[in-house]
Amino acid sequence: MITAFAPATIGNITCGFDVLGMCIDQPYDEVSVSFNDENRVRITKILGDNGKLPYEVEKNTASVAIISLLKHLNIKKGIDIIINKQMPFGSGLGSSAASAVAGVVAANALLGLPLKKHELLPFAIDGEAIASGSRHADNVAPCLLGGITLVRENEPLDIIELAVPEDLYVVAVHQQVQILTKEARAVIPKHFSMKESVSQMGNIAAFVAALYQNDLNLMSRSLKDVLAEPYRKALIPNYDALEKAVLYAGALSFGISGSGPTVFAFANNKNKVAQIEQMIRQVLDKTDIAYSIFSSKINKTGAEIR
Amino acid sequence: MITAFAPATIGNITCGFDVLGMCIDQPYDEVSVSFNDENRVRITKILGDNGKLPYEVEKNTASVAIISLLKHLNIKKGIDIIINKQMPFGSGLGSSAASAVAGVVAANALLGLPLKKHELLPFAIDGEAIASGSRHADNVAPCLLGGITLVRENEPLDIIELAVPEDLYVVAVHQQVQILTKEARAVIPKHFSMKESVSQMGNIAAFVAALYQNDLNLMSRSLKDVLAEPYRKALIPNYDALEKAVLYAGALSFGISGSGPTVFAFANNKNKVAQIEQMIRQVLDKTDIAYSIFSSKINKTGAEIR
Repeated sequence: MITAFAPATIGNITCGFDVLGMCIDQPYDEVSVSFNDENRVRITKILGDNGKLPYEVEKNTASVAIISLLKHLNIKKGIDIIINKQMPFGSGLGSSAASAVAGVVAANALLGLPLKKHELLPFAIDGEAIASGSRHADNVAPCLLGGITLVRENEPLDIIELAVPEDLYVVAVHQQVQILTKEARAVIPKHFSMKESVSQMGNIAAFVAALYQNDLNLMSRSLKDVLAEPYRKALIPNYDALEKAVLYAGALSFGISGSGPTVFAFANNKNKVAQIEQMIRQVLDKTDIAYSIFSSKINKTGAEIR
Repeated sequence: MITAFAPATIGNITCGFDVLGMCIDQPYDEVSVSFNDENRVRITKILGDNGKLPYEVEKNTASVAIISLLKHLNIKKGIDIIINKQMPFGSGLGSSAASAVAGVVAANALLGLPLKKHELLPFAIDGEAIASGSRHADNVAPCLLGGITLVRENEPLDIIELAVPEDLYVVAVHQQVQILTKEARAVIPKHFSMKESVSQMGNIAAFVAALYQNDLNLMSRSLKDVLAEPYRKALIPNYDALEKAVLYAGALSFGISGSGPTVFAFANNKNKVAQIEQMIRQVLDKTDIAYSIFSSKINKTGAEIR
């Protein structure tokens, strides 16, 4: 039996709606696979999902991804899948991407590594598409590859692995409320002015330059969004209070992870991380909402067998 | 008397509408300055403009830029200005930016270099705004500083100097027809879909990554525009024929310089440059339109005293 771990990812990274994503250390999903004698793919156990995930292999992101991989390789072996779901649903942390990625990474290892890691991308996307309804790589790519990734184009797929500044920390906070991606998409306007598009282009271009120049000050200035965050933040409890608190604590930025409700801050050292965590607790301990904080550097490894 | 040379610039660079710009070697404007005893700024001669440029100092980009600089420095000396206009008007090569930049660079030198080069930017922008009607740095910045520049924000001004790949050549071709920026702006839609904005973000982010990774293949893939070029190309004679010809000759890309009519191609070596030039001549020699071709590497120096 082989087990793969696939970590959480933060899509959009504020200035890169639908194109940027990055990998953090926690939380993560685990998928274990082993051969069976049945000549078919089965899900034998799902843990940690409170009964929410389907056992039907054509409906589950992990099994769909694995079946897609097997089909591509023209391998007819049967595989049993155990999913240990450790990531919250609808959290904006790339939960469905993580299960799909863990599935293909585990299966590829079980099969003796016929494909390189980056070659697994299309099959993980197939899996994630079952949950999200469309083929997108903005969470799947950083989950699989680690680091900060750019999806230049989805069809044909064109993924660029960007530079990762060494002294960059991420503090993510997940409040236990659920926001469906569908709902988060519905609040965004259908059209944007040239001024808004130009502002967004200036910021994402500056963000990429900041990564390569290792210029965290420029990064801080460019982490702005006019397309989605002004509309989505109303869906997230305590957004304004958290933003004020983490910026006061010295965060480089504050924004929404994917479609939320997870929000995240960048920081340039460990002390700042501790101060930001403390400020978040001060804000949220006054409320009735349960929450988790996940702090790490950017995870450069992505999904792996452990 | 001190003379400054300010070269042509290619605004937008296809994937960066209103935010990207780059400097090439030719053509350029010259502005010469000397002290006078009149305690005021005068334009004493304008060459090469066919009588089109105003002698009134409050209406001419070069003198407006110089007056703005003098005001900032609180210097009351009189300066005589000679403008040698070598760049075509309404060409999409940053002609008005070049005169403004040459003006402040010459005046700053005449005054004993009180400001560093990049500090001259706001005054050159003041000058260019007289011609264009709004404060924009997308031509002024690369003309002054050289290289490839990104305007992250105009107010407050935030300019980033991007990496310049060593083996990158530009072939620009100016057909002698005039397109007013106003007219070129009018054909662009007022609103864009999220899909269009996202496509543009993916491409400009990839373009910036390509510059730093020195990846000309990625650069070629990312030089696409959905905001302006699909609408503006109808204003430019022989656009489709030129595009087909230069791509056939091995160009990395083809697009509009600023608001046109100048178009440009990127190439990755000198042989390609010669082939591209030949193909352009084959297309345009069949027409009645006079044209000029300007080929060089990206000019990393920008405006200078010679």
